[in-house]
Amino acid sequence: MTQTDLSDLDIANMLADAARAVILPYFRQPGLSADNKDAGGFDPVTEADRAAEQAMRAILAQHRPEDGILGEEFGTQAGTSGRTWVLDPIDGTRGFLSGTPTWGVLIALSGADGPTLGIIDQPYTGERFTGGPGLAVLDGPRGRELLSTRATAALDQAILFSTFPEVGTPEERAGFEAVADRVRLTRFGMDCYAYALLAAGQIDLVIEAALNPYDIQAPIAVIEAAGGIVTDWQGGPAHQGGRVLAAANPALHAAALEILSRA
Amino acid sequence: MTQTDLSDLDIANMLADAARAVILPYFRQPGLSADNKDAGGFDPVTEADRAAEQAMRAILAQHRPEDGILGEEFGTQAGTSGRTWVLDPIDGTRGFLSGTPTWGVLIALSGADGPTLGIIDQPYTGERFTGGPGLAVLDGPRGRELLSTRATAALDQAILFSTFPEVGTPEERAGFEAVADRVRLTRFGMDCYAYALLAAGQIDLVIEAALNPYDIQAPIAVIEAAGGIVTDWQGGPAHQGGRVLAAANPALHAAALEILSRA
Repeated sequence: MTQTDLSDLDIANMLADAARAVILPYFRQPGLSADNKDAGGFDPVTEADRAAEQAMRAILAQHRPEDGILGEEFGTQAGTSGRTWVLDPIDGTRGFLSGTPTWGVLIALSGADGPTLGIIDQPYTGERFTGGPGLAVLDGPRGRELLSTRATAALDQAILFSTFPEVGTPEERAGFEAVADRVRLTRFGMDCYAYALLAAGQIDLVIEAALNPYDIQAPIAVIEAAGGIVTDWQGGPAHQGGRVLAAANPALHAAALEILSRA
Repeated sequence: MTQTDLSDLDIANMLADAARAVILPYFRQPGLSADNKDAGGFDPVTEADRAAEQAMRAILAQHRPEDGILGEEFGTQAGTSGRTWVLDPIDGTRGFLSGTPTWGVLIALSGADGPTLGIIDQPYTGERFTGGPGLAVLDGPRGRELLSTRATAALDQAILFSTFPEVGTPEERAGFEAVADRVRLTRFGMDCYAYALLAAGQIDLVIEAALNPYDIQAPIAVIEAAGGIVTDWQGGPAHQGGRVLAAANPALHAAALEILSRA
């Protein structure tokens, strides 16, 4: 089979299927290997993380040899097509190591202007959130459901998520808290699952800082396909990572941005 | 069918099945009704919450008329047997309203000295954590797995969970943070699912405050059956709620208690 036989969406699903098959046997197993990448902090990398990225890279080598790859575990591989597959085999390794079903496999296909196709996959719950041109769906335990962000326009009605209460630097935390003080409800601990919930119309805002490109490109594609907006804290593109504001709709985005842009 | 035909475990499973059937259609539906019980805060109660408790009370009226009931939504119903079914149809209503799969149905059967049988059920993931005499199991997407807490003995190796960073009063938060400063990893946002993860050997500590009896009785039964320990912050019984420390094993419990008992 050559690359012309399979659509980009087919490839993305093959990647997600491969990652699921590799990762699930490691999830909640006793004695999970947790290397420490960063001696100064807690950044575990599991065998599952590496094995899943290798499985995905093997599929791309076969079916998309012209495309570049940016992966969390094995870095950048240049391509010739101007397109890049952006892979984070286990986004939310802390959640993974704690057994929570809130980590995810992140897969995006990006051009020069950012991601155009993305998948957020949660292997244990069997949920796959997909966003691309003309496509915004959740395939999960209830079959296929359409993703659509919600219309909450006022901050005081909004539900806000971030992964950690610290958010980032003290300055970034202060910016986050200035928004949190205005919303109806703030919750933590969902990793990439928070972006999926925003795309699914369950929550309204996700605010994070210090993200890597592979943390946010798949969420951008899924959320934008579902009607939401993702930018940095100045309203510019977010696909290079850093400070990220994801919002369900333009009015809410503007309200949060007005606060965050002062941070 | 009379009460003698069904074991307490049979009844507990019937209650959990009924709650699942009632609640799941409400989960992630747009326009979910969220009454506000407490004008000073955010304490939503859904139709699902009430309908599920009514369904469970109807089963108990039929099969266990002599037993008392303590339910989150409809209060206390006295019994004559000295036994009480303790029901929280949706523990984690904030998580429920946000679409996270971290809320649960809590069912416990208690005598004078606390719970002897408990279920933590997560209807969307299809996970049921059950603990009772000679029984500590998860029935979930992988079939039946045994629950067993882990042996982590040192705080600096432990994973700690709490639902909110605020925990409780400023004094209680300070107690929590004194433990959090010593552990390997602290995470938030899991509602009752954190207790299930502790029973399943995935995390090591859960510390919370201001709990109600119906929040903690099912977790106590499940965790104790799996080898863990649940007390208040002075080492006394926790089944009346308030400040709760759940630990995977006696050594870790002692280490955390030594810090919390000063709070």
